[in-house]
Amino acid sequence: MPLSDLTSLPGVTATPDAATRGYVFNHTMIRVRDLDVSLDFYTRVLGFTPVYKSVFAEAAFTIVYLVLVGDQGVIPDDDDARKEWVLRQPGVLELTHNHGTENDPSFAYHNGNSEPRGFGHLCVSVPDVEAACARFEALGVTFQKRLSDGRMRHIAFIRDPDQYWIEILQPTPFAA
Amino acid sequence: MPLSDLTSLPGVTATPDAATRGYVFNHTMIRVRDLDVSLDFYTRVLGFTPVYKSVFAEAAFTIVYLVLVGDQGVIPDDDDARKEWVLRQPGVLELTHNHGTENDPSFAYHNGNSEPRGFGHLCVSVPDVEAACARFEALGVTFQKRLSDGRMRHIAFIRDPDQYWIEILQPTPFAA
Repeated sequence: MPLSDLTSLPGVTATPDAATRGYVFNHTMIRVRDLDVSLDFYTRVLGFTPVYKSVFAEAAFTIVYLVLVGDQGVIPDDDDARKEWVLRQPGVLELTHNHGTENDPSFAYHNGNSEPRGFGHLCVSVPDVEAACARFEALGVTFQKRLSDGRMRHIAFIRDPDQYWIEILQPTPFAA
Repeated sequence: MPLSDLTSLPGVTATPDAATRGYVFNHTMIRVRDLDVSLDFYTRVLGFTPVYKSVFAEAAFTIVYLVLVGDQGVIPDDDDARKEWVLRQPGVLELTHNHGTENDPSFAYHNGNSEPRGFGHLCVSVPDVEAACARFEALGVTFQKRLSDGRMRHIAFIRDPDQYWIEILQPTPFAA
């Protein structure tokens, strides 16, 4: 579908209001049961780097912002500069940890894909989806959908420690 | 907190595996009840541009990818080039519309912020949070939290047509 058809879909404002210049889709926040376990998953399996952490002691929660950058050298070392930098980036992941949930074996968050539904998934695009999935298998990652499952053979879904779904695909055409 | 303290937090892999080079946190998917209404909100209020649409007729759902770019000139016009391009971008929003929900007045998705909780919010950073909030007020946008509500006077939350929360903040320090 040509871009002009997309920008003339019902409801669409074809040319963004100039007032939105500089708006950035900065982050997506998900709650996690055990922060250490989630930090392990997102940094070791997916290559994220934590760049900001804030503890709200009175309200008993902690937030961590993570970015997925190929080169950690782009991350400012100075604290203030790094905080401003991360809030200008697109594609940041915010993990929120409510203190204590990690000690309750029965505690679980809702991933949005059973009733009541809403949020669906995060997606990480990778240069080579077959190589990435082979690596996830080797790391013991849980799959929601392998490339070989179902009819959409070009995408996979893995699950994070809280069972949130993460789609894995590659930008270039891929036919299994 | 210095970056070195963040990368030595429990669980964190300090230096990402070279195999994750080229991984991109590409998109976040949320389900929407009425696609036209959501496209209006995300394009008119927040400045997104739809860049890809796919209709899955048999499974009765449609997906639309939207990007928030200051200059639409960066978006490739060619269909194949644009699809590859969008899958390489960080900070893409995917809307999924299950056909027919828009005709059911009682239908509603779950925004993750009441039980069962999980997903929390999206965040759009803006150059000037006061100006952005004044604009949202003028547009009749629903607020979950105005700048003046509560103790965190530097952030606001608005709600999209499905009641998903969208945090609004500015990268630079702001004291109300």
